[in-house]
Amino acid sequence: MGQAYRVAILGATGAVGAELITLLEERNFPLSTLKLLASPRSAGQTLTFKGETIQVEEVSEAAFQGIDIVLASAGGSVSKAWAPKAVKAGAVVVDNSSAYRMDPQVPLIVPEVNPDAVTQHQGIIANPNCTTILMNVVVWPLHQLQPVQRILAATYQSASGAGARAMEEVKVQAQAILNDDPPPTEIFPYPLAFNLFPHNSDLNANGYCTEEMKMVQETRKIFNAPDLRVSVTCVRVPVLRAHSEAINLEFSQPFPIEKARTILQDSPGVKLVEDWQANYFPMPIDASGQDDVLVGRIRQDISHANGLELWLSGDQIRKGAALNAVQIAELLVERQLLKPAAVASA
Amino acid sequence: MGQAYRVAILGATGAVGAELITLLEERNFPLSTLKLLASPRSAGQTLTFKGETIQVEEVSEAAFQGIDIVLASAGGSVSKAWAPKAVKAGAVVVDNSSAYRMDPQVPLIVPEVNPDAVTQHQGIIANPNCTTILMNVVVWPLHQLQPVQRILAATYQSASGAGARAMEEVKVQAQAILNDDPPPTEIFPYPLAFNLFPHNSDLNANGYCTEEMKMVQETRKIFNAPDLRVSVTCVRVPVLRAHSEAINLEFSQPFPIEKARTILQDSPGVKLVEDWQANYFPMPIDASGQDDVLVGRIRQDISHANGLELWLSGDQIRKGAALNAVQIAELLVERQLLKPAAVASA
Repeated sequence: MGQAYRVAILGATGAVGAELITLLEERNFPLSTLKLLASPRSAGQTLTFKGETIQVEEVSEAAFQGIDIVLASAGGSVSKAWAPKAVKAGAVVVDNSSAYRMDPQVPLIVPEVNPDAVTQHQGIIANPNCTTILMNVVVWPLHQLQPVQRILAATYQSASGAGARAMEEVKVQAQAILNDDPPPTEIFPYPLAFNLFPHNSDLNANGYCTEEMKMVQETRKIFNAPDLRVSVTCVRVPVLRAHSEAINLEFSQPFPIEKARTILQDSPGVKLVEDWQANYFPMPIDASGQDDVLVGRIRQDISHANGLELWLSGDQIRKGAALNAVQIAELLVERQLLKPAAVASA
Repeated sequence: MGQAYRVAILGATGAVGAELITLLEERNFPLSTLKLLASPRSAGQTLTFKGETIQVEEVSEAAFQGIDIVLASAGGSVSKAWAPKAVKAGAVVVDNSSAYRMDPQVPLIVPEVNPDAVTQHQGIIANPNCTTILMNVVVWPLHQLQPVQRILAATYQSASGAGARAMEEVKVQAQAILNDDPPPTEIFPYPLAFNLFPHNSDLNANGYCTEEMKMVQETRKIFNAPDLRVSVTCVRVPVLRAHSEAINLEFSQPFPIEKARTILQDSPGVKLVEDWQANYFPMPIDASGQDDVLVGRIRQDISHANGLELWLSGDQIRKGAALNAVQIAELLVERQLLKPAAVASA
């Protein structure tokens, strides 16, 4: 038996928090203790890990004492407030919020893409945005064979991107509409059930919303391709848990379609889902609960000799958030990047 | 009072048929009689037009006698079987199916784009595919100022594209899922409620589905731009009645964004819906029941100096089908293109 680590989850009661607990159990992460932290509102709840009941504690400076790894998934302002304190207490923070992603001191990691960036951490490692992760896992292996020149994407983002309460809201809205009642809107600005709308994140001066600019800027950072041309339209759709993306890739020369298929078939974190006879391709209901990003409908772009079109679906909560964070934690363990002082024996 | 015409609707009991009846009434189309035709299965039903009850008749050769205009919306095989007979009986057929769209003898018309093509008809005029119409109404006015070089689109297509029963199926599926029951699938190959999938039309050898190739080929024909580069990903989403599209346009030089906005604000059949403060843009629930295609989120493509990104929603049954067909019929009337022999006095 190797070493075991003291892990804390910050934001344990959210949709991603729940998935983090599931994944640590499922993947048998080498931990000696698991501390569940949340806001005062959620503290006191109990959650289960490997049959053991754990009470959720209120986040505090003291709570990080003796912790080796913090998996933070409680939003940007919470991370801004607490991540530096956790680092000061000796922990490495894998942060799922957008707070530190574009900080040049902070590695932004998709383990299938840029695992080596983990060595550069100074206490905080950022987990990319869900839509970025799903796209990058699929585009990176192709980019390795022929550098991609331009990426155009349109997203089909599920309610889970706005959290567990948003998933519930879509169901409540759907039932209201089926009953001919007006759908309530608390989390989302507009009804999402039987409707859709451009992603409601803040709009930038260039007309892109923040969600779109995350995909643009984060992809450039993760690919270490600061001049990569990327444009995205992000749209929320009435799906519960998995995101989908229509992606157009432009290369500097034609990309043989069979080569693309072979590469994606063999790429980690990717599952090729293409049954051309049955007209069966990636769908959110099939991607939900899966670790792999499903990709299919790969075709030569008929509007551009050097273009490829493809379609993907991936679990927003799993690979789009919690799984990627746990994979980063596993990288820290594999590469023995946790401070020796912070290592406890199993 | 001008002339009045004897109109028949073939496929009167479908979703588009119902909308055709509504529109003929709403727009006070100059008709002297309205005949409602359908398959034997639907014959005998009664429908209402201007307070008058009309019994649906079974389609037959005799039924077209004395008819000036047939609005056909009963699918490709029905049009193939009956449109030539209606033409032989002296009627002009405005066909909503895909049967004749790419026939070089048949004009394919979006009245806001190529109304003059109506003069070339030889008995049949084709109504384009819903997604084509919505895209063309928006792209054409820009194309008039600066020819578009390439169009990339991703669609978000509502259930209505597969007919009235498909709209009902999505609601039944949603209720089943909310009740934790398995969703029934009769019309669609996979559950659409809380899910989505690439458009399930037949796949071509190039990897594009028929729905996508319709958008490509029909746009080229309507724009009279046989070499226009177009690529599309078509996706069905759990929305009831309006389609949305994320569209990327490439020009040969930069397209000033304010110019695009001004042009679209003044274009027929288009409504600019952009409240940047409120993050409010076109949505299917707002497009439903509207004649105009809603367009917004117009922005300079940050990945291409000559690119524009935009987003639209339009009523699939109305402008995407029935309204466009009635507008074509109105063009025939305005330009006095119906055979004099077939004209009755009002």
